[in-house]
Amino acid sequence: MSENSVTAIASPNIAFIKYWGNRDPALRLPANASLSMTLSNLQTTTTVIFDDRLEADQIEIDGSPASAKAASRVTMHLDLIRTLSGVPAFASMRSQSNFPAGAGIASSASAFAALTAAASNAAGLELDKKQLSILARRGSGSAARSIFGGFVQLFSGEVNEDGYAEQLAPAEHWHLVDLIAVVTKEHKSTGSSAGHLLAPTSPIQAPRVQDAARRLETCKDAILQKDFRTLAQIVELDSNLMHSVMMTSEPPLLYLEPESISVMKHVTRWREAGLDVCYTIDAGPNVHCICSFEDSHEVEHQLRSIDGILDIYRCSPGNGVALTANNEQAPQ
Amino acid sequence: MSENSVTAIASPNIAFIKYWGNRDPALRLPANASLSMTLSNLQTTTTVIFDDRLEADQIEIDGSPASAKAASRVTMHLDLIRTLSGVPAFASMRSQSNFPAGAGIASSASAFAALTAAASNAAGLELDKKQLSILARRGSGSAARSIFGGFVQLFSGEVNEDGYAEQLAPAEHWHLVDLIAVVTKEHKSTGSSAGHLLAPTSPIQAPRVQDAARRLETCKDAILQKDFRTLAQIVELDSNLMHSVMMTSEPPLLYLEPESISVMKHVTRWREAGLDVCYTIDAGPNVHCICSFEDSHEVEHQLRSIDGILDIYRCSPGNGVALTANNEQAPQ
Repeated sequence: MSENSVTAIASPNIAFIKYWGNRDPALRLPANASLSMTLSNLQTTTTVIFDDRLEADQIEIDGSPASAKAASRVTMHLDLIRTLSGVPAFASMRSQSNFPAGAGIASSASAFAALTAAASNAAGLELDKKQLSILARRGSGSAARSIFGGFVQLFSGEVNEDGYAEQLAPAEHWHLVDLIAVVTKEHKSTGSSAGHLLAPTSPIQAPRVQDAARRLETCKDAILQKDFRTLAQIVELDSNLMHSVMMTSEPPLLYLEPESISVMKHVTRWREAGLDVCYTIDAGPNVHCICSFEDSHEVEHQLRSIDGILDIYRCSPGNGVALTANNEQAPQ
Repeated sequence: MSENSVTAIASPNIAFIKYWGNRDPALRLPANASLSMTLSNLQTTTTVIFDDRLEADQIEIDGSPASAKAASRVTMHLDLIRTLSGVPAFASMRSQSNFPAGAGIASSASAFAALTAAASNAAGLELDKKQLSILARRGSGSAARSIFGGFVQLFSGEVNEDGYAEQLAPAEHWHLVDLIAVVTKEHKSTGSSAGHLLAPTSPIQAPRVQDAARRLETCKDAILQKDFRTLAQIVELDSNLMHSVMMTSEPPLLYLEPESISVMKHVTRWREAGLDVCYTIDAGPNVHCICSFEDSHEVEHQLRSIDGILDIYRCSPGNGVALTANNEQAPQ
């Protein structure tokens, strides 16, 4: 079973209906269902090999040995896979992303989606996408969504087995563009895992969760009908609700930076002026400007005139996790 | 009764526990009780005379004839006073503030507190402070608080007669300082009166209101015990809750500007470093930095190093509304 080197590639996703807070932190069962678009162009490539000769997991991220915190999270995930597969060996893992980690572009989503696919395959497990999604969720909630391409829904789940994602529509369904306005490349001071634990301390987490099913249905319908204006309204509301919970938790989390507010205000004005564009912001300050393909070049042009934007990433709906062709075992 | 020229002076106040949304918009009965500090230095001076020879109310604000919108709001308030007093005459009103209107420094609070005191006195009404507070509330909810000096609580009220403010502690009780970081002097695009009407459209207004009594008690205790750290936490939470409601209402209101976020983040860091300072933001982008007198000069010094601050106003706990000495009728 061991000594198969397997490489998987996964992309991050941007949540239109956000997941914030867990009903079961140990299992990472989300407090509410969520909906996202998997992103093209950005990706994490992860290679795993289980090797009897290793005396500990060897974990390398972006060319350097992983920090103790990151390594322990990866090892916990490898432990799950060792338990499921019966492969006792330690693993060597190398992971490389082509975008900055921890700055509100869901790096843990692509990282744990790629790790789950590569490690489970290297350990000889034959998991289907639903099973991969459940397992990826244990490493990072939003990773469950990055198993699939296009537009993806993650159920909140009552128990481990029903906390999985499924594809709502393939990438080709609607050519939206996500222009990610990067305003900082620094790693955020409070990571999402710690942040999720704070969600219940906000007096508005419960009503946010309670209203989530309605928002998700509205968003789902807007996507299926390609109704940009309805999408824009519900996506911005959902993003603002999550940041409201964050900034009213104890301690409060203010992920927004001055430049985030500046981009939010510009986006609102551009939409009033007729452009199909809306904003959404994950657990970080970078602003995802979701737009129609038709208006995306004008939006990108306008974004370049705003002070404080360090970089702009252009993404379209992307693919789900995949193994690379040169692996010794075939992908599912 | 008519032809007495009466002048009153009132100051704005900064709410530590905010009022946002009305349970009864016509009567301006607030959705929740609120708590504020009346501010020294900033003031509105208003002179009213009822004159049988006038053929309409003549309303001058800051040296110019009032806009149609402002004039109609003043006339509605004068109508209330004409009904109560039985004085049918039109009035001439001149009002002058020494700070910019409509930018999150509660200009309508000082304006309607001064107008209520001057006009009721000019019409021969002999109202005590509780009655003045009820009447001022009809013009602007927060004006009910500016009737009193120092630290003031406004009850939400079930009916008109119990929607009044009262003093919690006099200005001398605690030498706090409000350093108002002015980031724009432009008039806000959505005024508070229109904003209050949107509050119920946010899914988190109900839980904000539901938790308000707890926050008010915590804030009240912190003021009575001069416990700055407890005050800071509850004041920032309450401000963030109000802005959360604003930015999740339909349409959303984003009063915060990039510079507001910048000041908020700095204030949080300064407090972590040991300074007694917290932020609170009314319906506008300007940031009120509440600090102990002892730390106020260091905070002001630090504020001056932040880009985008146009001006800083320094206020202490101030006095309630008062008639000036040269009026023909004596103040209550």
